[in-house]
Amino acid sequence: MFMNNYFTNRRSVRKFSNKEVNDNLLKEMLKAAACAPTTGGMQLYSVIITRKPEMKAALASAHFSQPAFMNAPVIMTFCADFNRFTHWCKINGANPVFDNLQSFVAAALDTTILAQQFCTIAEQEGLGTCYLGTTTYNAQMIAGALQLPELVVPIITVSVGYPDEADNETDKDRLSVEAFVHDEHYHAQTEEEIVKLFNEKEAREDNKRFVVENNKKTLAQVFTDVRYPGENNIYFSETFKEFLKQQKFI
Amino acid sequence: MFMNNYFTNRRSVRKFSNKEVNDNLLKEMLKAAACAPTTGGMQLYSVIITRKPEMKAALASAHFSQPAFMNAPVIMTFCADFNRFTHWCKINGANPVFDNLQSFVAAALDTTILAQQFCTIAEQEGLGTCYLGTTTYNAQMIAGALQLPELVVPIITVSVGYPDEADNETDKDRLSVEAFVHDEHYHAQTEEEIVKLFNEKEAREDNKRFVVENNKKTLAQVFTDVRYPGENNIYFSETFKEFLKQQKFI
Repeated sequence: MFMNNYFTNRRSVRKFSNKEVNDNLLKEMLKAAACAPTTGGMQLYSVIITRKPEMKAALASAHFSQPAFMNAPVIMTFCADFNRFTHWCKINGANPVFDNLQSFVAAALDTTILAQQFCTIAEQEGLGTCYLGTTTYNAQMIAGALQLPELVVPIITVSVGYPDEADNETDKDRLSVEAFVHDEHYHAQTEEEIVKLFNEKEAREDNKRFVVENNKKTLAQVFTDVRYPGENNIYFSETFKEFLKQQKFI
Repeated sequence: MFMNNYFTNRRSVRKFSNKEVNDNLLKEMLKAAACAPTTGGMQLYSVIITRKPEMKAALASAHFSQPAFMNAPVIMTFCADFNRFTHWCKINGANPVFDNLQSFVAAALDTTILAQQFCTIAEQEGLGTCYLGTTTYNAQMIAGALQLPELVVPIITVSVGYPDEADNETDKDRLSVEAFVHDEHYHAQTEEEIVKLFNEKEAREDNKRFVVENNKKTLAQVFTDVRYPGENNIYFSETFKEFLKQQKFI
């Protein structure tokens, strides 16, 4: 039904070929991505491109050396950045007050919008991308390695490269649109509705295998006990809060 | 150079025609957008679609009745949502601990990625969209109007409709790619570099007009004194923090 079926067919890529990613192409794609919406036209972001082995090594432990990081020829760290704009304000006799939560939120939204638009463009150009979920867990380590100043916070890391064609994922594991779209107001779902909405996800062969492999009774327990345990969520929330303070956003 | 020049030519739309936005199309576009990346496959978002005049009226003051809100036939509120996933965990004998900052950040990223992918799809289908920057300013009012439960926080609001063709913006007001892309590590820009990077923006006719109209000396002062004054940033940071506490994320 759409102009092209890229959007429904797209897949994240975690295995990359040896083909080099041209630097001009990368910059042109970022330039195009920056035409995406941005708060008040302020472009509250910076992107750090990592290619050198020594810089990758400096970032590896922050990303738990996960394969999608280790195998990628290019790592891109998308940072919320109010430093550049604040600097410009100070040069121009203005009084910037952007060291607060709303300014951080605005910059984080700008950054995420840029990252997602970049991924869409890169994937349509035949590249593969993968979001790494580790960036805000170890933001301070990343900031140290990349020399991020005040009012700059890493939000998203994306692995980029040409896909290894052998790595094809199966069907997309997504809830039906009814699960997350509400007309006019939020409809609190009943237990029965939730069970039905997640039924397909739980019945997938890959998810059933995760339950067995992790010695759990339910798929939900894989999420709460193995993938996102409470003690980790609490620990990384504290460290991220400390880092936001250090970078002067809270 | 790209598959299509949509990405560099796109514009936000603030004036909409009377043409109705088909509901099936809207849901199909959201379904396609949900194929975008999401943290651990959890889809930590909900989208509330507003069409009814009484619901629009209930939201209007939260968005300061701005024209891009008032004129749009469809308003979409994209919410970070850990409520649904937590509910599913509890039904399945799991112990969810998602009432913390990292979980909020993960959900906010998922939500922003979904919103941006939706806008890209909608714009490629010929619709116009506009992000409203007011959502996190008045999150509590919006949550009240939309009946959002705990662990659900509105992050982004997008106006949607068919563009009024008469409304064509001028060139994109964007910094050059050198301003925000750094190789290997963050390069702190000198005052001279900042001046040069923002030079083109300050020289634009529309921006020069803003300076005159607002009786300011520099464009930066329009941002700090008129558009994003410190007292507003601080006030709305406090109210948003209170709201995050109320919704149990911090």
